[in-house]
Amino acid sequence: MEAVWSADAHVRGMLAFEAVLALAEADAGVIPRDAADTIASVCQTVTLDAFGIFRDAARAGTPAIPLVRMLTERTPDAARGFVHWGATSQDAVDTALVLQMRDGLDLLAGTLRETGASCAALAERYADMPMAGRTLLQQALPVTFGLKAARWLAMVTRQMRRLREVRERISVLQLGGAAGTLASLGDAGVRIVELAAERLGLAPPDLPWHAERDRVGEVAGTLGVVAGAMAKIARDVILLAQTEVGEVAEGGAPDKGGSSALPQKRNPIDATLAIAASRLAIGMVPIVLGAMAQEHERGVGGWQTEWEALPDLFRYCGGAAEHMRDALRHLRVEPDRMRDNLERSRGQVMAEALTMALAPSLGRDNAFRVVRDLSEQTRAAGQELQEVAHGDERVRSVLTAEEIDRVFEPAQYLGSTKQFIDRALTEYRALVTPAAGDATDG
Amino acid sequence: MEAVWSADAHVRGMLAFEAVLALAEADAGVIPRDAADTIASVCQTVTLDAFGIFRDAARAGTPAIPLVRMLTERTPDAARGFVHWGATSQDAVDTALVLQMRDGLDLLAGTLRETGASCAALAERYADMPMAGRTLLQQALPVTFGLKAARWLAMVTRQMRRLREVRERISVLQLGGAAGTLASLGDAGVRIVELAAERLGLAPPDLPWHAERDRVGEVAGTLGVVAGAMAKIARDVILLAQTEVGEVAEGGAPDKGGSSALPQKRNPIDATLAIAASRLAIGMVPIVLGAMAQEHERGVGGWQTEWEALPDLFRYCGGAAEHMRDALRHLRVEPDRMRDNLERSRGQVMAEALTMALAPSLGRDNAFRVVRDLSEQTRAAGQELQEVAHGDERVRSVLTAEEIDRVFEPAQYLGSTKQFIDRALTEYRALVTPAAGDATDG
Amino acid sequence: MEAVWSADAHVRGMLAFEAVLALAEADAGVIPRDAADTIASVCQTVTLDAFGIFRDAARAGTPAIPLVRMLTERTPDAARGFVHWGATSQDAVDTALVLQMRDGLDLLAGTLRETGASCAALAERYADMPMAGRTLLQQALPVTFGLKAARWLAMVTRQMRRLREVRERISVLQLGGAAGTLASLGDAGVRIVELAAERLGLAPPDLPWHAERDRVGEVAGTLGVVAGAMAKIARDVILLAQTEVGEVAEGGAPDKGGSSALPQKRNPIDATLAIAASRLAIGMVPIVLGAMAQEHERGVGGWQTEWEALPDLFRYCGGAAEHMRDALRHLRVEPDRMRDNLERSRGQVMAEALTMALAPSLGRDNAFRVVRDLSEQTRAAGQELQEVAHGDERVRSVLTAEEIDRVFEPAQYLGSTKQFIDRALTEYRALVTPAAGDATDG
Amino acid sequence: MEAVWSADAHVRGMLAFEAVLALAEADAGVIPRDAADTIASVCQTVTLDAFGIFRDAARAGTPAIPLVRMLTERTPDAARGFVHWGATSQDAVDTALVLQMRDGLDLLAGTLRETGASCAALAERYADMPMAGRTLLQQALPVTFGLKAARWLAMVTRQMRRLREVRERISVLQLGGAAGTLASLGDAGVRIVELAAERLGLAPPDLPWHAERDRVGEVAGTLGVVAGAMAKIARDVILLAQTEVGEVAEGGAPDKGGSSALPQKRNPIDATLAIAASRLAIGMVPIVLGAMAQEHERGVGGWQTEWEALPDLFRYCGGAAEHMRDALRHLRVEPDRMRDNLERSRGQVMAEALTMALAPSLGRDNAFRVVRDLSEQTRAAGQELQEVAHGDERVRSVLTAEEIDRVFEPAQYLGSTKQFIDRALTEYRALVTPAAGDATDG
Repeated sequence: MEAVWSADAHVRGMLAFEAVLALAEADAGVIPRDAADTIASVCQTVTLDAFGIFRDAARAGTPAIPLVRMLTERTPDAARGFVHWGATSQDAVDTALVLQMRDGLDLLAGTLRETGASCAALAERYADMPMAGRTLLQQALPVTFGLKAARWLAMVTRQMRRLREVRERISVLQLGGAAGTLASLGDAGVRIVELAAERLGLAPPDLPWHAERDRVGEVAGTLGVVAGAMAKIARDVILLAQTEVGEVAEGGAPDKGGSSALPQKRNPIDATLAIAASRLAIGMVPIVLGAMAQEHERGVGGWQTEWEALPDLFRYCGGAAEHMRDALRHLRVEPDRMRDNLERSRGQVMAEALTMALAPSLGRDNAFRVVRDLSEQTRAAGQELQEVAHGDERVRSVLTAEEIDRVFEPAQYLGSTKQFIDRALTEYRALVTPAAGDATDG
Repeated sequence: MEAVWSADAHVRGMLAFEAVLALAEADAGVIPRDAADTIASVCQTVTLDAFGIFRDAARAGTPAIPLVRMLTERTPDAARGFVHWGATSQDAVDTALVLQMRDGLDLLAGTLRETGASCAALAERYADMPMAGRTLLQQALPVTFGLKAARWLAMVTRQMRRLREVRERISVLQLGGAAGTLASLGDAGVRIVELAAERLGLAPPDLPWHAERDRVGEVAGTLGVVAGAMAKIARDVILLAQTEVGEVAEGGAPDKGGSSALPQKRNPIDATLAIAASRLAIGMVPIVLGAMAQEHERGVGGWQTEWEALPDLFRYCGGAAEHMRDALRHLRVEPDRMRDNLERSRGQVMAEALTMALAPSLGRDNAFRVVRDLSEQTRAAGQELQEVAHGDERVRSVLTAEEIDRVFEPAQYLGSTKQFIDRALTEYRALVTPAAGDATDG
Repeated sequence: MEAVWSADAHVRGMLAFEAVLALAEADAGVIPRDAADTIASVCQTVTLDAFGIFRDAARAGTPAIPLVRMLTERTPDAARGFVHWGATSQDAVDTALVLQMRDGLDLLAGTLRETGASCAALAERYADMPMAGRTLLQQALPVTFGLKAARWLAMVTRQMRRLREVRERISVLQLGGAAGTLASLGDAGVRIVELAAERLGLAPPDLPWHAERDRVGEVAGTLGVVAGAMAKIARDVILLAQTEVGEVAEGGAPDKGGSSALPQKRNPIDATLAIAASRLAIGMVPIVLGAMAQEHERGVGGWQTEWEALPDLFRYCGGAAEHMRDALRHLRVEPDRMRDNLERSRGQVMAEALTMALAPSLGRDNAFRVVRDLSEQTRAAGQELQEVAHGDERVRSVLTAEEIDRVFEPAQYLGSTKQFIDRALTEYRALVTPAAGDATDG
Repeated sequence: MEAVWSADAHVRGMLAFEAVLALAEADAGVIPRDAADTIASVCQTVTLDAFGIFRDAARAGTPAIPLVRMLTERTPDAARGFVHWGATSQDAVDTALVLQMRDGLDLLAGTLRETGASCAALAERYADMPMAGRTLLQQALPVTFGLKAARWLAMVTRQMRRLREVRERISVLQLGGAAGTLASLGDAGVRIVELAAERLGLAPPDLPWHAERDRVGEVAGTLGVVAGAMAKIARDVILLAQTEVGEVAEGGAPDKGGSSALPQKRNPIDATLAIAASRLAIGMVPIVLGAMAQEHERGVGGWQTEWEALPDLFRYCGGAAEHMRDALRHLRVEPDRMRDNLERSRGQVMAEALTMALAPSLGRDNAFRVVRDLSEQTRAAGQELQEVAHGDERVRSVLTAEEIDRVFEPAQYLGSTKQFIDRALTEYRALVTPAAGDATDG
């Protein structure tokens, strides 16, 4: 992701724009074929000083101005007069940006695919492994670790689909000339836009979009959601990795997650850094959205804001995804601790199961009250809920001792867990198999 | 939008959930048909104290808890025991939220459609009305006011499309039970989800999504983009309405936009309030995205954040859209000022036209340098560029006096303007005509 | 906080402004004394329709316009012509805002003071109660619960100090007339500003600040920090309240924190809602800061943004503080669980103590390596670190068996804990005792 | 600012921490003097691979871990065992951060001082130069350009004062050991903190602040306000520089602000980039504040977020300030355009002056209505307000023809303008003169 958003990549993108612009103009008969071929060839082979371009950009206001100047200097005399013909700086900068966003989205989709693969493996392997489901960080009732992984997976799968849609939507050329009329191309403007777009594998835009940045905004919103999704998984991993919970640990390199003071520490570093990266990525989203209010035919401040915010957004979102991919790939799962923790509530985690066992006879509302009483009694007395239930007349009038015992087996109270896991696996696999997928997120 | 996000509407949504839950459970044979009918009937007719519910929510942690309590109290004995059977608070709250988001999206789509209609009318009427195109708030070269409106229109049309997609994607039921396993519904869970979803006109979710909030995040991102789009149009209107520019003014009621101190003032109130609303809406986006990191099976802080942030997001985004609809509907356009302003640059706004007229003979780079010289000369001498061009040998060696004069006619230098306007109109109309559209954003 | 930021309170603030304006102008001889007295009297006694004012504000652009209109209508003929003399809408709106911010800051300071009192009580009571210190949510080495509370306290104390400073700085009148020159007051402008400010207990501003919103921005930043501080404490409480940790629980009303599905649940509701409120408050900060770029002599969008963002910021920040005050006031502390958890690391939490005991002889770097080895050995074998240490030759060559045992007593490895707690208590008490404090945050 | 926040500077800061730690520990008799001297000497002379440190930090979780490892390797045998004695990674990282923040604040204060100097020069030079005051971007009544500059100056001066306070408050050492108890330093902890702090010119903290980040949050809020202040000035400059307004232009290098397509353009590049930088800086603020909810004794995600967000915040805020400094230093002011624009409202800009001239006789409310009528009449008829006033009986019954003419002289309707300018100059000068200032922002 660093490479995709490097100064060099941006320069290469602008050169790609200048090349196809010239070629498309030659196709349309607006500039001589020879000149176009020369320009395209220079664009492909020239090495420009990206550092110098960005240093000069601070004075020029855009990197396209020094780039066009340098490119013009390097182009042989006969073709020199046709460089950047009919275009404006923003045409080059925005098209380069589009190419970088497309690459960035592909990279991110690839990372999510790997993350999804790890989730799928965990979902399948631990489909039947009971653990405490937790709401507001209190034990609620049993789930399985496979279900938790399946929920992560379903979210990742949905994001992979979103990235495809957004990729499609933002893969459009920018070409409008200085004020978006293509005035300098006479009658050939629309035709040249189509030809140039095709050469870059982009769609032609309906209209130039110099100051209508909704496509950019959509990318930002989408990456913000991906970053939020990564934080959700990271938060779960960190909570499960707490000393007192201990149900998972990050694996990876042996020296990973140590401490400078504490010899015993094994910190969940990848999930930690994923959370940091996610916060940073999400922080970029309103910057990009707030920058959408761009004035008239070219923004004075808003457009320039994107130049820092978008690369950082991709870097941070990519970082969050990569850290979570690594965390999940090497995740160590501790089934014993899952079992131990389920037992630590002294049966309280099965209170709903008991309620629902009583409900057909007592009504849900009465059953709820009975179990709440028993639950408080249990807590006060430091007993097991199962034991208290056995001793309670209201319960005994409805359930046999055997039925009561059965209520307290977590594996018998998992409802649709299995079906949910299967669905998440099916959806993910449908998306990543060659037939359903396309070449872009391989 | 206030009504959609009122406490009453949320209560109605939760009651709708409780009703279809009971009916679907009866369909699946899990609870008695009579009980379900009774519950559904109470849900339709009962009037609950929304204020009291939300006051108690601060203690209970969710509004569903007091609601279920009140509903249970109001339900006749025989059915009482089957209220909220197998569900959890979040099932009711989230499903109500989905219903409100769906209504909110429909309302917003309707407002955008009206905004689009005003843009379309302006685009058509002023298609040929030249005005100064401005980049970085400097006059650049001529556009038409119709083109500016067409660019607004294209952006609005794209957002209408996005809202449809998002509406589709978020219209899913929430039903997972206390930890997302539907354990309390035994084998019937998945079937009940399908039946309940169908009754509400929602899709059944792949998996319960109590703590996977990517759908909510996508709504936030999308509304943020709509808000940004509104701010772009608002900013343009405000800049055009400046005393020194004066190309448009907000119309509307005669007392609108007055001042308490200045008798002559006509402030662009709608655009001003649209900008404020847009900033507020965009500010909600990272709050919602940042809240996505929800812990395990139910979030402790993040989920609760949505309860304020989402309604505000819809209100502010809706407000921005409504203000811009009103501003554009009553917009007064001043063609004379557009013409005057075009002339105020002393011909500099046609500098690119002159460059492109010279470029076929001199090369774009040389032509650019020549015109930059002339332009500076013009500025220094306080002359007209046209006049200076006539007196310059380099120009005269390439262009006849007649050709020079023609260069300085804005209407001759509009390139693909007309085609762009047509496209924007075509796309908008295709979307809003009954055949292409659907019932939801009428 | 709701009351401070109600529409009524804003109307009262604007009326207070209009009253002192008239009185100060009479003092300066600019308007007749009788007229001023009449106006001031009307302002004190009149009841205006706040709802109507805010409804009309949407057309007028500010609430001051309908307010001045209504006030003028209610003022007897002889004085009517002197209402709002020389002022502009923003003078009234901003001064009302200042009065509300001052009240809001006082309220918040009072809440923090109570929060501080709870922290102080906890710090003192549990000064010597060992618990696991946790870094990156891994047990690190012992702290005491008193120290944790003392760190919360020190942060709260610092915020109380900050609020006092900010209160001082923002308590300034706004009065500049329509463009900030006080032109309509002739030579008397500056004098009237001083007189009016004094009557409201405000400072006169150096210059009118209609479009220079740094004071408002500072309030926003400061409240954002307070909100962040509340979230830190809330997060700690929630983590300590987890079923698997169980070191604290929220107390309060017996039905607080229940669940609609789970009879056994005791959710940490106050801390949960504090986190939500904190996220919302922090989300308001960039909205206010982003709105600072206000155009020329009065902003077109930015100023209007504050009208929603500032009240919400105070409400949310106040809410976070109130929830944490309640959570801490009723906090149930479980010393047994603290002891149990300290033991659950099998002595690993004392690894640094062992390192430092070995370091004088082995050097810190060697000691660190030795203990890291022992620690891994312990983990692999499922043993106690103390036991492993006893069996290790490198340790035995340096420490006696007695010394080893002593290393593993948490209470012996608390360093400066006691001094830190004392400092936090001293600083808090110095701030809240009458001599040191002032009347404003009582 | 790039240098202050470079990886090298961070490494140097951590080495400075390790040096004073050793020296203070020797002072307190905890480690041998020779070892301390050796360590301090290595810290001063060693060159570490900053790139390698940050690469390894991604695995270790903090840059202090690889730094301590490298430093230990480079330290001669006898002293090696005393490196990083009793400290934790965060002690080194946070102290380095404090040193960088202090340098960053000094740099920023210096830039603001220069910006203030330019504002002061403009305020003085153009104190009497009338221009249109504009509210909601409509001409309101006259101000002077000196007053506008004085308002900028007053805001800058207030920010300089704020930076001093914040600098004082954040200049505290971090030293708490692994869980903030300084357990590994026995009884000497507090003493060593004092000694180490003194050696770095920092204050000792009341308590360690590993997870209480309010100081960091305050820096973020303060820099956000500075960034907002810069955006206000930048926005004004850009609006004044519009082709249709033309009252100022950015100067600077002759090739600055050109265009790749438009030979005549002179874009306000510095103000444009200041706005972009300001938006980015403000975007960092909620990231830092949101990261304050750090868990227990060390944050898992929040702390790590600061590592990117704080340097970026300083860079962007510094960038905004530097661009505005440059924009104002070279600002070209166009008095002729100011005069022309004042006349373009056809006297409407003097409507309040006319109202106030009529008010003593008619009452403010009646006078307001009369002038509003005249104003509308003027607009409808395309006349001058002055002319219409002369022809109006209601006006003529109160004012002589001479008095009417006098009303329309802008220079006679400037109220307290002069006094305000003087105040702003006085405050700024008091702050920057050696007696009042201190060494830190020279």
